[in-house]
Amino acid sequence: MAVGEALFPAMPVIEGVRLGTTQAGIKKPGRRDLVVIEVAEGATVAGTFTRNAFCAAPVHVARRHLTSGSPRYLVINTGNANAGTGEIGMRDAKATCAELGRLAGVPGTSVLPFSTGVIGEPLPMERLLSALPAVLEALSDSGWHAAAEGILTTDTRPKGATATVEIGGRTVTINGISKGSGMIKPNMATMLSFVATDAAIDQALLETLLREGVERSFNCITVDSDTSTNDACMLIATGRGPRVAGDADLARFRDALDRVLIDLAQAIIRDGEGATKFVTLEVGEARTRQEALDVAFTVAHSPLVKTALYASDANWGRILAAVGRAPVADFDVERVVIDLGDVRLVESGGRAAGYTEEAGSAVMAGEEIVIRIRLGRGEQAATVWTSDLSHEYVSINADYRS
Amino acid sequence: MAVGEALFPAMPVIEGVRLGTTQAGIKKPGRRDLVVIEVAEGATVAGTFTRNAFCAAPVHVARRHLTSGSPRYLVINTGNANAGTGEIGMRDAKATCAELGRLAGVPGTSVLPFSTGVIGEPLPMERLLSALPAVLEALSDSGWHAAAEGILTTDTRPKGATATVEIGGRTVTINGISKGSGMIKPNMATMLSFVATDAAIDQALLETLLREGVERSFNCITVDSDTSTNDACMLIATGRGPRVAGDADLARFRDALDRVLIDLAQAIIRDGEGATKFVTLEVGEARTRQEALDVAFTVAHSPLVKTALYASDANWGRILAAVGRAPVADFDVERVVIDLGDVRLVESGGRAAGYTEEAGSAVMAGEEIVIRIRLGRGEQAATVWTSDLSHEYVSINADYRS
Repeated sequence: MAVGEALFPAMPVIEGVRLGTTQAGIKKPGRRDLVVIEVAEGATVAGTFTRNAFCAAPVHVARRHLTSGSPRYLVINTGNANAGTGEIGMRDAKATCAELGRLAGVPGTSVLPFSTGVIGEPLPMERLLSALPAVLEALSDSGWHAAAEGILTTDTRPKGATATVEIGGRTVTINGISKGSGMIKPNMATMLSFVATDAAIDQALLETLLREGVERSFNCITVDSDTSTNDACMLIATGRGPRVAGDADLARFRDALDRVLIDLAQAIIRDGEGATKFVTLEVGEARTRQEALDVAFTVAHSPLVKTALYASDANWGRILAAVGRAPVADFDVERVVIDLGDVRLVESGGRAAGYTEEAGSAVMAGEEIVIRIRLGRGEQAATVWTSDLSHEYVSINADYRS
Repeated sequence: MAVGEALFPAMPVIEGVRLGTTQAGIKKPGRRDLVVIEVAEGATVAGTFTRNAFCAAPVHVARRHLTSGSPRYLVINTGNANAGTGEIGMRDAKATCAELGRLAGVPGTSVLPFSTGVIGEPLPMERLLSALPAVLEALSDSGWHAAAEGILTTDTRPKGATATVEIGGRTVTINGISKGSGMIKPNMATMLSFVATDAAIDQALLETLLREGVERSFNCITVDSDTSTNDACMLIATGRGPRVAGDADLARFRDALDRVLIDLAQAIIRDGEGATKFVTLEVGEARTRQEALDVAFTVAHSPLVKTALYASDANWGRILAAVGRAPVADFDVERVVIDLGDVRLVESGGRAAGYTEEAGSAVMAGEEIVIRIRLGRGEQAATVWTSDLSHEYVSINADYRS
C-alpha cells in the first residue's frame, strides 16, 4: 500500500556524480541490491547518521572514513543491514571498502559503506565482493533511477527529487534519492538518503546545510517511532558548477535543498509500511520548537490516532487525549485549538461548537489529511509527517522477517 | 482475544464496602454500565488520577471531592467517558454526585464520580440519573463480580484480585477490581481500578501505600502507549478490621496490597486489545530506575517488536534496535545482554555466540514471554508488562468508535 501516485522525476545529470546498480543476490537473486555512487575528485561530502546506540558496522566505518579522507565512492547494499554483527560486521564493512578501493584505484578509506535490510545476519561477503566489478562497470551519470530502485527494501516505489536554482547566473542542480518504509523515526537522518549537487560548497557550510536541512525534513517524519540502526543521509557537492557564496546565493540554495530533502522525506511517509493516509501535523503557538515537536510526535505515534486515521474516523477524542499526554509542562488545555483540514474540531477543552460528524468525516475520507494543533502558549511551530496504522502494517511486520 | 484463561477469584466480603450494579442504557441497552460502591462512614480513601492534561470532568470532580469531604459513594458509568465535554461535562459530573447524594442522604461532595468510554459525547443524564435508585437498591457486600463486569468497556473479561494478610492476629482482606484494555499507558494510575480493605489505615499512610503500589503495578504496564483521559485508581480502607501500624505489619500489608495491584495491572495486559501474548520486560543493571523504565517502555512501545511478538518471531534485531534508541546517555552497547526466556539473544553488541533460531522460536511460541535486558551500567532495575500488536488490535480500533 502507499499513498498517492508513484512519480519519479526526470533526474538531470549532476556533473561529477555517476551511479551504478547491479544484482549481487545478497538476500535473494534477481533483485537490484548493490549500488555504487562515484564522486569526482575535489567534491565535498557531508553526512548525518543514526543516533541509535546499536548503530551498524557500516555507520561506524562510514563516519570514520568521512572524517579521515576524501570520499570518492559510496557503496550501498540492501537485503542485509550488517547491524548487530559485532567484530565480524566491522571486518566485513572494511573489507568491502578495501576491495572496492582496490578495483577503482583509490584508498579503502575513500569508500563509504552503507547497508540496509535484515539486522543480525553476517553479510554474504563472497557474493557482495564478486559483484563489485559489475557495479563499477555500470557507472553512469544517468543512473539515478536505477540507484533509487537498488537501495529499496520493503519500499514499494523508488523515491527521487530534484531541484534547480540560479547561482551567479548559472544553473545549479540538486538531485536526491531516499529509501525507507518501516523502522522510520529518524534521529539526525533517515534510513538512507543520498543527495548531490554540482555546486561548489565548502565542507563546513555543507555540513551546516545538511544538518539544518535534515532537521526540517527527515527528522520530522515518523512511520512507527522506531529509529533504525542504519540511518544515514549524505550530501555531496561536486564543485563542477558555481560556488555557493554570499547570503543571497546561500538562501536560494538552502530553499532548493530543503525542497529536495522534504520531498524525499515525504516520499518515505507516502510509502510507509501499510500506509493508506499521508498525514501532516502542524503544531503552532508552542513555547519552543521542541515542545511543538513533542506534541506532534506524541500524536503521530499514538496507535489509537493512527488506527482512527486508517478507519477515516474523525475520532477527535483520541487526538485530544494524545495532545493531553504530551510532555508539556503547565499545559492549559482550555487554550488548545485543533483543526482537521478546514474543520474546527476542538476548542475550550472540548468539541468545537459548530462541529459535525459529517464535516469531520468528509475531511477524513481524503488520502491527504492535515491536523493543525495550536497550543496557545507561544510563537514556535513544527510540522511532522506521518502515516496511519493499518492491517497491512501488521501483516508486513508479522509475516516478514525484516 | 486475550492471553491465558479468564479466572475471576472468589471475592470475600470486605466489611464496610457494598457494591451495586445495574443497566442504565448509557451507550446501548442490555449491558451493565452503572456501578456504585458504598463506603462505610469513617473509612479512609486515597486516589491517584491520570496526568493527561485533557483529563475528564469526573476526574476533576473526584479529585476535588476526595480532598474536601469524607467519601461515602463512588459512582462509575461506562459507555461514555465524559471527557472533552467542557463546562457541560463538569455540570453533569456534579449533578450525578448531587442526585446520588440526595437519594443516599449524604452531601454531593461525599460522592466521587468516574466515567469511561467514548470521549467527547455528553453524558445521557436522563438515563443515568433515572437508574440511580436501582443501582442503590442493588447494593450488596457480595457485589464484587457484578461490579467488575459493570465497569468494562472493550475488555473481554472482568478483572479481580484478592489477598489476605495477618495483622495483630486477625485476618485483613484486600479486594480489587480493574478495567482497561486499550488506551493503556497509565501515568499515576490505570484506566479504572477500585481496591478496598477492611484494615484501618490513616489517610497519609493510605496515600503513600497507593502511590508507591501504583508505581510498581499500573505505572508499569502499557498496551499502546496512550495515556487515558480518565485513569483513576482508588484505595479504600474501611477500618472495620485491625489497624495497620508498626513496620512489620506495614511490610506485610504492603506486600499483600502490591500483589493485588500487580495482579490487576497484569490482568489488564492479558486482556489488552487484540493481545495474543503477555510479555514481561525486565531491565536490570541500569544507573537509575527511570533509565530502566525508559528502556523497558521503549521496547514495549516499539511497533516492530510488538508485531514480531505477535508473529512469534524471535526477531532480536528489532529488540536490539529499540534498546539502542532508548533515551540513555553514554550507552555502551558492548555491555548489553539480552535474554529471551532462558535463551541468550544478544551480547557484546551482537547476536550471542550460542544462539540458534530454533531455541529462540521455541521460547517465542509460548503465550507468556519474558525478555531480560541487562544494561551493564548500574544496580537499578524495573519490570514492565505489555502485550503484542495484532491484526485484531487494528480491527478493534479501526472498526469501533471507542
